Amino acid sequence: MRAVTVVAGELVVTERPDPVPGPGEVVVAVVAAGINGADLLQRRGFYPAPAGAPVDIPGLEFAGRVLELGPNTMGRCAIGDRVMAITGGGGQAERVVVPESHLLPVPAALGTAEAGGAPEAYSTAADALLTQGRLSAGDRVLISGAAGGVGTAAVQLAHSVGAHVVASVRNLDHHAAVAALGADEVIVPEAVGDHGPYDVSLELVGAAGVEAVLAHLAPGARVVVIGVGAGAKAQINLLALMGARATVGGSTLRARSIEEKAAVARLMEDRVVPLLAEGTLSVPVEATYPLEEATAAYERFASGAKLGKIVLVV
Amino acid sequence: MRAVTVVAGELVVTERPDPVPGPGEVVVAVVAAGINGADLLQRRGFYPAPAGAPVDIPGLEFAGRVLELGPNTMGRCAIGDRVMAITGGGGQAERVVVPESHLLPVPAALGTAEAGGAPEAYSTAADALLTQGRLSAGDRVLISGAAGGVGTAAVQLAHSVGAHVVASVRNLDHHAAVAALGADEVIVPEAVGDHGPYDVSLELVGAAGVEAVLAHLAPGARVVVIGVGAGAKAQINLLALMGARATVGGSTLRARSIEEKAAVARLMEDRVVPLLAEGTLSVPVEATYPLEEATAAYERFASGAKLGKIVLVV
Repeated sequence: MRAVTVVAGELVVTERPDPVPGPGEVVVAVVAAGINGADLLQRRGFYPAPAGAPVDIPGLEFAGRVLELGPNTMGRCAIGDRVMAITGGGGQAERVVVPESHLLPVPAALGTAEAGGAPEAYSTAADALLTQGRLSAGDRVLISGAAGGVGTAAVQLAHSVGAHVVASVRNLDHHAAVAALGADEVIVPEAVGDHGPYDVSLELVGAAGVEAVLAHLAPGARVVVIGVGAGAKAQINLLALMGARATVGGSTLRARSIEEKAAVARLMEDRVVPLLAEGTLSVPVEATYPLEEATAAYERFASGAKLGKIVLVV
Repeated sequence: MRAVTVVAGELVVTERPDPVPGPGEVVVAVVAAGINGADLLQRRGFYPAPAGAPVDIPGLEFAGRVLELGPNTMGRCAIGDRVMAITGGGGQAERVVVPESHLLPVPAALGTAEAGGAPEAYSTAADALLTQGRLSAGDRVLISGAAGGVGTAAVQLAHSVGAHVVASVRNLDHHAAVAALGADEVIVPEAVGDHGPYDVSLELVGAAGVEAVLAHLAPGARVVVIGVGAGAKAQINLLALMGARATVGGSTLRARSIEEKAAVARLMEDRVVPLLAEGTLSVPVEATYPLEEATAAYERFASGAKLGKIVLVV
């Protein structure tokens, strides 16, 4: 199979052996695979693939069709089914092998590129907002970095839950589009202090956003850090946390166990896939690139001037 | 009544009007009142009393006898009952008024000074370990600052839950005593990294302890910050939190609502008072002072070379 491969920091498409499914695993013929911040970190050598994932093929999410079932699968899917999933790595290739328990059905309403860009963004947003952040109706939530892949998913999901959504977006060109996704207020990062206090704060940019929100937390607030591309070292006044009885937590999906990822897939089936199927949630795609143009696709991702996902198509 | 009063940063015993109970409140004749770090902050002007508490009488906990019932009390106590409670302030006086719902019965096994030093330490430890930290049997918990009032309570409570208790104590003179309270390991702060990874970390000293434990957290760890006497500004690597899926949270009891404090009192009745009654939990008291010697008592508290509580007796 062809696969995007990291070779000395460059992305090249190489020919690799087809993956073989183990017990409980399936092989998927990939048709689309979204790009995520972790892929860029991995390319630069800062974020080695977790155990069990290919060491040099990036890609944390994909959509495609079931091609082969390994031994002892449980009948959750059949050959030819349209499926999507997150994975610890290896998604940016013609074929990928994953535990059957991680697969999600692709709703008919979702196009190919959208399906390839949905799993990581929505799994991350759902885990961060619903599980870590315990977001519920009436909560005021700040989403910092709301125009990106996870951000656009988080705005829509938070809106669907009935939260009051304050979306922080640096690029004014994207403010109207983020408002259209369901944000009650779209602000620049400098205005965070004028729109609190926040019950939940989802940080997708970095340490400066965490520092900025600390003085504007509601009692019992949950700050959930998912992205630190703009800096990971935060100076935190513990008295501010004590006064608000707040927590600052971080999370990643990539390194979780097979069982934990299956639990996230069930959360997706319960809370997200039905809303994708009925069109309440969408997957904004900024651009698609063929596998061979992975370098250009990563550059576009890194430029930041995007709304939603950058997706490789196979 | 006589009351310890903060006058221009000094502690003097002054004559004050007897408190009058409002609806749902009771007056308690105080016999003992523990000293806490917040009292010292309040004396220095850094921590104003919360709304509803006397502005210049410190004291967050007390034990005594019920003296008077206000209107619309619910029959939780009768005149003459031995009771103890936390309060937003005013405990270091001959009389204090509190909501009836905050009262706890004093077990017969508990002496006067012990009862006066029990409520704040155990309410803080129970809320921090059980509610905020979700400590359960088999967890490995680090208690940083384990020789103080909250620390000695936390070591015993964590041990009674079935956790593996690692107690960090600067003063080697107290190591044997803290081990006798139920700590599985008593270490100096510099050795924190050799005894993890920790599921729960209770920080009673300050920011340096939080920074030191970040690299030694188990997946899903909860860092709960209760005391920052040695510094409140922590440099936190958010990637460490993300990698461990950990949270850093802070908490105080003092500023909580009446209803929230009642909930803490019910937690105490369920989980702590029975263990105090049977002697499984104790209240180490380092020294007692009469109300008139509050200044000396505060100095002894601040000196740090103590095991357990400093208590004023009326």
